[in-house]
Amino acid sequence: MAKIVLQDIATKAPKNLDKDTVKEQTAKILEQLDELQNLLFAESKHSVLVVIQGMDGSGKDGVIRNVLGNMNPQGVSVKSYKAPTAEELSHDFLWRIHQYAPAKGMIQVFNRSHYEDILVTRVHGWCNDDTAKKRMQAINDFEKLMQEHNNTHILKFYLHISPEEQQERLTERMQDPAKMWKYNEKDFEEAKLWDVYMKMYEDCFEHCDKPEWTIVPADQNWYKEYIIANALLDLLKGLDMQYPGLKK
Amino acid sequence: MAKIVLQDIATKAPKNLDKDTVKEQTAKILEQLDELQNLLFAESKHSVLVVIQGMDGSGKDGVIRNVLGNMNPQGVSVKSYKAPTAEELSHDFLWRIHQYAPAKGMIQVFNRSHYEDILVTRVHGWCNDDTAKKRMQAINDFEKLMQEHNNTHILKFYLHISPEEQQERLTERMQDPAKMWKYNEKDFEEAKLWDVYMKMYEDCFEHCDKPEWTIVPADQNWYKEYIIANALLDLLKGLDMQYPGLKK
Repeated sequence: MAKIVLQDIATKAPKNLDKDTVKEQTAKILEQLDELQNLLFAESKHSVLVVIQGMDGSGKDGVIRNVLGNMNPQGVSVKSYKAPTAEELSHDFLWRIHQYAPAKGMIQVFNRSHYEDILVTRVHGWCNDDTAKKRMQAINDFEKLMQEHNNTHILKFYLHISPEEQQERLTERMQDPAKMWKYNEKDFEEAKLWDVYMKMYEDCFEHCDKPEWTIVPADQNWYKEYIIANALLDLLKGLDMQYPGLKK
Repeated sequence: MAKIVLQDIATKAPKNLDKDTVKEQTAKILEQLDELQNLLFAESKHSVLVVIQGMDGSGKDGVIRNVLGNMNPQGVSVKSYKAPTAEELSHDFLWRIHQYAPAKGMIQVFNRSHYEDILVTRVHGWCNDDTAKKRMQAINDFEKLMQEHNNTHILKFYLHISPEEQQERLTERMQDPAKMWKYNEKDFEEAKLWDVYMKMYEDCFEHCDKPEWTIVPADQNWYKEYIIANALLDLLKGLDMQYPGLKK
């Protein structure tokens, strides 16, 4: 696909949008999602994978709680990927990912994902360009496997915040008692590598584009939640699902 | 690769081979394998996947016991694939396979494997040619993933017996008290589909050939064990492994 230049993409909602109107709309979408997810689960023909990537403080946890957390947890599962364990490192980088691929009927959310293996690793030089290229090919093959062989529909979201907004949010973690548990002084070190991260993200949007990524303006939570809920709605409505009748 | 025609390949050892000499040679190879496997485990840079396929009665279990069973079980793991469970069927066909991909340092044996998804399924018409083609591509991608991203060395063996030898062995299961537990009347039904199975095997040797398959003449256990032990020896000797020194 055409190269995405993150710097040229707004991190905020369009100015003419009214926050309250959008929030009402999101609430309505969430009601529809609840019903559609039930149908997805009942029919069990399709599966959905939602990949959420973004810089520290971009609001991944919030989106998961407010959008995905609204549906029946029996049919929605969240896997957060941290730094790999010794056992995970003794396998190919997709081994720990494939285990959590969604079963038919399920929505699986990845809070960070296999994409970290071509992001944080490249930024820190643990993965060179040649290896990154091979990993991208392996990721494309893997996503094709899920799509072709398990009716998996993949949504990939990049939560796009400005570096200024990030600084504000990371600082807030030092001050808000309800957010202190998320504070990690290393996040400020990582934040200094902003430009390199953007470059690696752009590279991955360009080369791992089946399906394409959705760049979500993420400085405001209400807009980000609307965009993601709406994308999920579009997907599920497009599946033409039906409740199975009585088993004979 | 060039098309393999199974009918043109011997199922027996070359006539000039002396059974006792070969058995002595195998015993020596097994001693070397024991040491090399220990080195593989200690170094933990490479991993080995041994795929064993063959018709009912071709001696898969025997090879595993006599060749692979000779090494330290801490570093050798066997996974037998049966008909997929409901949970396995709700994922892509490689999901249950990837979970058992070998960790670095390990030898993983598959008694039957992902290849069943383009063998038994095709023979019975549960998988059409178009799906089979896509599965073959997915298998090639998956084997490439393990090879490129986890230093996995893959050995694929087809235990090649004659239909006459198979009939004899299946019948023996009805008569030998130590083998009755393996008896399954359905095996005789499957045996009638011999020609279709051979066709599907040939197709998979042709299209899933990275690495190529080893066709093992399997009417005699002593020869089959020698061939497989020797292939494993060649592989491990070629890895140029070294015991790691003291950790600093």
